[in-house]
Amino acid sequence: MTPEVRDKVRAAAEELSYAVSRNASGLVTGRTCRVAVVVPSLRPWYFASVVSGLGHALHEAGLDMLVHQVGHLEDWIHTLPLRHNSDALVAVALELTEEQCAHAADMAGPVVLVGERLPGRASVHIDDHAGTAGATRHLLNLGHARIAYIGSRTDGGMSLSSTARLNGYHEAMTEAGLEPWTVTKSPGPGCGELAVGELLSHQSPPTAVLAESDNVALGAHRALRRSGVPVPGAISLMGFDDHDVSSALDLTTVDQAPQTLGRVTGHLVADLVQGRRPSDTCVELPVQIVPRQSTAAPRKRRTSP
Amino acid sequence: MTPEVRDKVRAAAEELSYAVSRNASGLVTGRTCRVAVVVPSLRPWYFASVVSGLGHALHEAGLDMLVHQVGHLEDWIHTLPLRHNSDALVAVALELTEEQCAHAADMAGPVVLVGERLPGRASVHIDDHAGTAGATRHLLNLGHARIAYIGSRTDGGMSLSSTARLNGYHEAMTEAGLEPWTVTKSPGPGCGELAVGELLSHQSPPTAVLAESDNVALGAHRALRRSGVPVPGAISLMGFDDHDVSSALDLTTVDQAPQTLGRVTGHLVADLVQGRRPSDTCVELPVQIVPRQSTAAPRKRRTSP
Repeated sequence: MTPEVRDKVRAAAEELSYAVSRNASGLVTGRTCRVAVVVPSLRPWYFASVVSGLGHALHEAGLDMLVHQVGHLEDWIHTLPLRHNSDALVAVALELTEEQCAHAADMAGPVVLVGERLPGRASVHIDDHAGTAGATRHLLNLGHARIAYIGSRTDGGMSLSSTARLNGYHEAMTEAGLEPWTVTKSPGPGCGELAVGELLSHQSPPTAVLAESDNVALGAHRALRRSGVPVPGAISLMGFDDHDVSSALDLTTVDQAPQTLGRVTGHLVADLVQGRRPSDTCVELPVQIVPRQSTAAPRKRRTSP
Repeated sequence: MTPEVRDKVRAAAEELSYAVSRNASGLVTGRTCRVAVVVPSLRPWYFASVVSGLGHALHEAGLDMLVHQVGHLEDWIHTLPLRHNSDALVAVALELTEEQCAHAADMAGPVVLVGERLPGRASVHIDDHAGTAGATRHLLNLGHARIAYIGSRTDGGMSLSSTARLNGYHEAMTEAGLEPWTVTKSPGPGCGELAVGELLSHQSPPTAVLAESDNVALGAHRALRRSGVPVPGAISLMGFDDHDVSSALDLTTVDQAPQTLGRVTGHLVADLVQGRRPSDTCVELPVQIVPRQSTAAPRKRRTSP
């Protein structure tokens, strides 16, 4: 079809309010032209950004997006879109077992994981380990040696990405011949604040703090501000995510570009659903350190001649 | 059905991976059990929060949620879910004309507007006018008289909610016998920063600034911080939204509870789709002033005996 013909068809279709019932056409093709997205919540910035990028890419490919929020992983299976209601399923930041993935694939078609990975399953994720290792080396290169790390840990343990980020920090500290110094608290609004409380009660507090995420760094930033500890004058602070807020706070961080993560996932899903062979079904995207004003060389180093 | 029987049926259904094809059942009932949500983007915190609340309420009512993002209002009609693909349409923060609403209702069933309103159409919104009037009076009561307002305006003019917020500020200033002082800039990341640049170049800068939204306030906060102007020491700053970041920045603001807005909308949509008569189809939700540390009495007042 030439572009001219395509434009004419489109104009005619618009004039007639041309409408396709995907229910009816789906019974013929066996396809619904819908992709189901399962995500813990749309509220946090990271999840909303991933799903936003995903939605744009699916829309370009002519696929609609069903969004399901699951508060707890145990509810996941009940929230699962039922058979024949979608052509594929995208699980955002959910740590699924192989058994759960197999069940989902049986119910909903191809399954793609975002932000997590599982051997043999399609996934799009970042290299969390390399991200925190690079962030730690960034602080080491500024001259810091007393670098503390704030992580989150629930009663059930650490998530895969939290573990990978912690390990990246450990590796870079060990490489530099330094002792890792880790503080872990329950995830949530108080995580960074409580960790700073602990760090500031130490005989000799750190000169730099790397937080597992920007959300944790925000809490730490608030606690430092309220305690009258200048950032980066007394303590350098670095986050991970490049949350929208980080630039407002001038927070140095690691950009993991969640919207790109979503967009790449959308292209992969469209390939799988529309019968194209994707070049790679396990995609690892690079991260990028974003230096801002919350990190600087440690004070002693700058004042001594 | 007794609870015991319901549990048994549920257990059996789970064991058999019981699955309903909504495509097939929709052909019998004429219902799709899906609601289409059209939103400018899922990325900004406000939109993501509304859609999150909406998704939870729809899920409770047994309805799935299709999410469509429209970058520009002109694309809206092309993005519209096609006939018989959903039982209702929710338009989040889109300024639709009556003609567009009628077209949407013809294509997609009942239409509910969120964050905007149109005579005769179902909507859920806040009272923007009362919100900024209250915020302005809050600053007046602290002793401020030189209160500037930062609004956003595109080449095409001001949005309805921007206009309502500006009018609320104007009303409260006029009531107090004071001259309104309004600065408007293009919406976007630079809005608050550029406005502060203009305000700080005035012969006698304001002692308090009310921003149309927290996003605008964040830019203003950054510009003030970089200029070395203490908040609230020299200038009190107040936003509107209660963005997640506002508490991290200790920003005084007006909470408009977008997740509640979404949840209330979800219940209204479920009533309309499932044939219940909602008590009210034009719902106005209250706002709440959240005092934090970015506002205080003006300096002169505090230092003079």
